[in-house]
Amino acid sequence: MRLSRFFLPILKENPKEAEIVSHRLMLRAGMIRQQAAGSYTFLPLGKRVLDKVCAIIREEQNRAGANEILMPTIQSADLWRESGRYDSYGKEMLRIEDRHGRDMLYGPTNEEVVTDIFRSYVRSYKDLPLNLYHIQWKFRDEVRPRFGVMRSREFLMKDAYSFDIDQASAETAYHRMFVAYLRTFQRCGLQAIPMRADTGPIGGDLSHEFIILASTGESEVFCHRDFLGLKVPDASVDFSDAAGLAEVVKTWTTPYAATDEMHDEATWSAVPAEDKVAARGIEVGHIFYFGTKYSEPLKALVTGPDGKETPVHGGSYGIGPSRLIAAIIEASHDENGIVWPKSVAPFDVGLVSMKPGDADCDAACETIYRELEAAGFDVLYDDQDTRAGAKFASMDLIGLPMQVIVGPRGAKAGEAEIKVRATGERETIPLASVVARVSA
Amino acid sequence: MRLSRFFLPILKENPKEAEIVSHRLMLRAGMIRQQAAGSYTFLPLGKRVLDKVCAIIREEQNRAGANEILMPTIQSADLWRESGRYDSYGKEMLRIEDRHGRDMLYGPTNEEVVTDIFRSYVRSYKDLPLNLYHIQWKFRDEVRPRFGVMRSREFLMKDAYSFDIDQASAETAYHRMFVAYLRTFQRCGLQAIPMRADTGPIGGDLSHEFIILASTGESEVFCHRDFLGLKVPDASVDFSDAAGLAEVVKTWTTPYAATDEMHDEATWSAVPAEDKVAARGIEVGHIFYFGTKYSEPLKALVTGPDGKETPVHGGSYGIGPSRLIAAIIEASHDENGIVWPKSVAPFDVGLVSMKPGDADCDAACETIYRELEAAGFDVLYDDQDTRAGAKFASMDLIGLPMQVIVGPRGAKAGEAEIKVRATGERETIPLASVVARVSA
Repeated sequence: MRLSRFFLPILKENPKEAEIVSHRLMLRAGMIRQQAAGSYTFLPLGKRVLDKVCAIIREEQNRAGANEILMPTIQSADLWRESGRYDSYGKEMLRIEDRHGRDMLYGPTNEEVVTDIFRSYVRSYKDLPLNLYHIQWKFRDEVRPRFGVMRSREFLMKDAYSFDIDQASAETAYHRMFVAYLRTFQRCGLQAIPMRADTGPIGGDLSHEFIILASTGESEVFCHRDFLGLKVPDASVDFSDAAGLAEVVKTWTTPYAATDEMHDEATWSAVPAEDKVAARGIEVGHIFYFGTKYSEPLKALVTGPDGKETPVHGGSYGIGPSRLIAAIIEASHDENGIVWPKSVAPFDVGLVSMKPGDADCDAACETIYRELEAAGFDVLYDDQDTRAGAKFASMDLIGLPMQVIVGPRGAKAGEAEIKVRATGERETIPLASVVARVSA
Repeated sequence: MRLSRFFLPILKENPKEAEIVSHRLMLRAGMIRQQAAGSYTFLPLGKRVLDKVCAIIREEQNRAGANEILMPTIQSADLWRESGRYDSYGKEMLRIEDRHGRDMLYGPTNEEVVTDIFRSYVRSYKDLPLNLYHIQWKFRDEVRPRFGVMRSREFLMKDAYSFDIDQASAETAYHRMFVAYLRTFQRCGLQAIPMRADTGPIGGDLSHEFIILASTGESEVFCHRDFLGLKVPDASVDFSDAAGLAEVVKTWTTPYAATDEMHDEATWSAVPAEDKVAARGIEVGHIFYFGTKYSEPLKALVTGPDGKETPVHGGSYGIGPSRLIAAIIEASHDENGIVWPKSVAPFDVGLVSMKPGDADCDAACETIYRELEAAGFDVLYDDQDTRAGAKFASMDLIGLPMQVIVGPRGAKAGEAEIKVRATGERETIPLASVVARVSA
């Protein structure tokens, strides 16, 4: 992509309204723009990161056997009356009346709708296990939205819903999502620690939050140092091996880990001082097993092998992709801007022409651009006639993993400079070696 | 994808509520489910088609130089008061009040929001032309939603917005989208005819609808037979060549074509009888040039080369991907079900095992499945133990372009049957030739 054709409105000033670094950097880098309180447009650079994050989430959901669907954002209030949550959900639910005076709402979550889908098609244990997920907009009318996309009112959410014949298989479904989440966050360049959590308005009695350690985190967390060395299963993990999954979950839930809400000072005091990690954390995922909480009132019944009807056992599993982007930035930035992990970077390489219009410079850049794109890299090619200082500052700010810098003298001498964003390391190499160096 | 792991709730009965064939087939094939009046869930099969259609739309928008963003669904009423449309838009606009009593609305279109984005970043003609698009949910509170996703209340829409310094460049921007639309519909397997159209609540004085001829179409259309032979530009079309684009648009707007709204009996009567095509049509896209209708009230001004400030010239360009799916089915089905064009088929191949559990049959199917997937095909592998009749009926209903059928005797003899869905043509070939035959 040529920068001259890419809408990248970089802000020179630090936006005053931004209280945390991810919000500030996302605004400055032209990733997002506020439209209303707690409501943001993703600009082209932000949209590219969102797509990368969603692609990783989707791949891991699919690998774990979940089926992707797409439910509407506007829901009928009647379903929520059936489940009993319409009155209890509170003011965070955006209630709407349509032109015929029917009560609707903007879905803050989808347990009711997905259970309604389930009950209309599935009757037998033979069609289980089933896990349906979608990536769709949610609205929660927070009284004080803040921190940019970290706590917005309208936000994208991946929510998955599992259906099983009994508690034992529902726990295996829970384990599948648990492992898929470990893999998802690791692929996004994050170290996430699962912590026992409160179930809140979703309900149920088993729940974990996945927490990223970050000094700017919203809540205090306490965990054992052992977590920092635990291995995340690789892509060959067998999601049909219930015992293997249970083993992974056991490993990841044995050392002490708790948010302040669930913190137990007595257990914590037994952890040796040198193993204690007391830090701040950001929640990036939340999973729930709630059994028959929704299937009973909504009468989502299945016939078991014994011919008897029983309410299906459910769980739900959420990740906020927009919030995840902010968490990645909180965990990976420096004083010059964002430092994207390769897997979610909006472009792989920034190609900087120091003097557009100079024949050598143009020729070298066009060749590198063509060759890198042909090799499968996404390249942002700064072909604009602006000051060197502004070019470097913008490239550092938007945080692409690697920069290739071509000046007129270097181009004439057949050389380009490579800069690795994360380390700041620079080296001058022959133009002909650029693709090989970027691929290395 | 193994059918045993894919949520595909085929309906045996014809749903009574479905008045048109696409609605009926989408329900029966387990593509969509109604959640409320005019509101649908896309089930896994439907979601796959939606993704394919959106990918084509996106590729052609990007090729034409548009930049993808993502604006929120909920908009502030204030912007619509600025443009003067808040009161005039009517009851199709879903009006909402948030917990603080602020007036919001579910966006039926985005001229106001995108103009607000534009005015906050762009000041100079040097940053033009600019085209920003997104694919996002819209809500229009139709008094009588019907025909499934063809006329729903909540629907997905690709809407693009162009910004130019003057009318001449704005017309080139209009031509870019015109050509991108021709290409998009052709790639979806449709023959779309551009027809002059009314501008309705969007406004402006230049507008075309893209209409698919289909006997089940909602409106009467009149066009010259010449359209049926016109060529759509190929992928090498140069979107920076204004004169070339204007030429294409001229070719595609010269023969007579009109919806009943714009029909002119006098001109029509001059068309020779043998060239007259009077048919029914489905609108699949709508483009508008509205000049300064939004930039003036919203004060979206840019400085021209002469240093003077002038309101930017705009256009907007819409395609409904969900509606497009229905139009594709209206245009391509038979008495047994859907006949997908290859480009948007949910899977490329249906692999049918006639006897799961039979050693030869399983071995042959597993090999073919692995080889086809390795060759880059999306395969739906019916590995379920159901009746032959039901298997065939389901495969025909969901309309995958090609079926590979493996029975125990054939497998033993080293043979499979190939069926082309569109023609019904069948042939028996060696198992070892299946991949080559599918690739041909």
